[in-house]
Amino acid sequence: MNSKEKLATAFKKNYHICIGLDTDINKIPEFLKSEKSPISVFNKMIIESTYECAAAYKINFAFYEQEGAKGYELLEETRKCIPENIFTIADAKRGDIGNTSEMYAKAVFDLLNFDSITLHPYMGNDSLSPFLNYVDRLCFILALTSNKGAIDFEKLELANGNLLYQEVIEKVKLWNTNKNLGLVFGATKLEELKENISRFEDLPILLPGVGAQGGSLEDVVSTFNNSGNNRFLINISRGLIYVDSSREFINKVKMQLSDFNKSIEKINN
Amino acid sequence: MNSKEKLATAFKKNYHICIGLDTDINKIPEFLKSEKSPISVFNKMIIESTYECAAAYKINFAFYEQEGAKGYELLEETRKCIPENIFTIADAKRGDIGNTSEMYAKAVFDLLNFDSITLHPYMGNDSLSPFLNYVDRLCFILALTSNKGAIDFEKLELANGNLLYQEVIEKVKLWNTNKNLGLVFGATKLEELKENISRFEDLPILLPGVGAQGGSLEDVVSTFNNSGNNRFLINISRGLIYVDSSREFINKVKMQLSDFNKSIEKINN
Repeated sequence: MNSKEKLATAFKKNYHICIGLDTDINKIPEFLKSEKSPISVFNKMIIESTYECAAAYKINFAFYEQEGAKGYELLEETRKCIPENIFTIADAKRGDIGNTSEMYAKAVFDLLNFDSITLHPYMGNDSLSPFLNYVDRLCFILALTSNKGAIDFEKLELANGNLLYQEVIEKVKLWNTNKNLGLVFGATKLEELKENISRFEDLPILLPGVGAQGGSLEDVVSTFNNSGNNRFLINISRGLIYVDSSREFINKVKMQLSDFNKSIEKINN
Repeated sequence: MNSKEKLATAFKKNYHICIGLDTDINKIPEFLKSEKSPISVFNKMIIESTYECAAAYKINFAFYEQEGAKGYELLEETRKCIPENIFTIADAKRGDIGNTSEMYAKAVFDLLNFDSITLHPYMGNDSLSPFLNYVDRLCFILALTSNKGAIDFEKLELANGNLLYQEVIEKVKLWNTNKNLGLVFGATKLEELKENISRFEDLPILLPGVGAQGGSLEDVVSTFNNSGNNRFLINISRGLIYVDSSREFINKVKMQLSDFNKSIEKINN
């Protein structure tokens, strides 16, 4: 199953929750801290107990890079724990000149074998194309992000009347000849999602900002449902993986994921 | 000596060449390939033979990340080879939401002990502030980059009449309360540098694009000199570290760096 098929399969099953493995040693259950590699054990437990009902896993590279070479090993280990048929996202937010992007692509797609990556649009087409040339992998380009700073540049009005993030969406559609592009679109403000959803066309959308950052799962799902679009991934991290810190935390995580999936199903039926 | 002082010392000596350690195993001299760690040996030789006449070293993270955990170790080793009094740049082009940028900052400033980092502006102020909070380190924000794709977003005209990269420059100046911000500004088109140099004020400028990418060293130096600005670093990588591939390559690298420095001095006198 290639990366596009993995994602299509998840959407077909009505799975839209992407589990963000933003694993922080200070937030995992206390009883795991005596393990030799607490983060690896925690991630493995989360993955094993959720993969049957998850649409995707997103690994935030910063949480691993902060530990240097050791962290990179943890990242590799965690990647290997994710079953082959589940879609994976390298949340690395890269973007550089061509020969450099080529090496980042090599790291993420060849070495770590991720299905997709998040990318900064700022440097333009040729900074993205080394990633896009992996025609069987996907690239989620940052359009509107879920943080306050989105107002500083992303929402600036251009001379042509578009906001900058809308121009990003338009260009991404133009560049999508291999049908392997998607967008990151923050779900913190429902109005913005409603106003822009028709622009997405068939691009898969990765939505941060639900849960800990304030967006509502039900509102987001209803909005996609109302526009007949089911190509979206809602990233949830802190609101799922740290839902409990007891020895039975895994049961709570499973229940929480199941509740999310039920809410989605209820809206989609 | 803190990071700001290191940079000021380099400028005082009229040193402006930043050596880009974009080290590629396929491009280093053949005779080094039998070494246990050819890239480490090559980088160490380059650093030991140039540090007395270099303004800074810039390490391009992609070249190391492509090797995974092993690459990260190489990056750590190379960082440690650079003498404490020489300014270092982590060319990592990061930028993410606050809690994530905080971890990237921790990796680059605490763990790897770089003096500065390159950052994507797209996500705005709060994506940069975790880096800026390291008040003794510097952050070079991408304004205009040296690649073709700069035309796609960076050069878009805004409703207020500025081009996007000019808006980045204006905001960077507003956010520079700790006096630890700088800009990346591509040197491939001289006219753009001339048109914008008065906007830089006291921000240090990192210029890619000279040499392999087509910009002229003399033109760039003259432009800064004519506007009475000496706060600039010209990054040279391929045009210096791969200038020769014989067993005597180090002598050629030294000569090349000396030639660059002489050209700069000639213009500045």
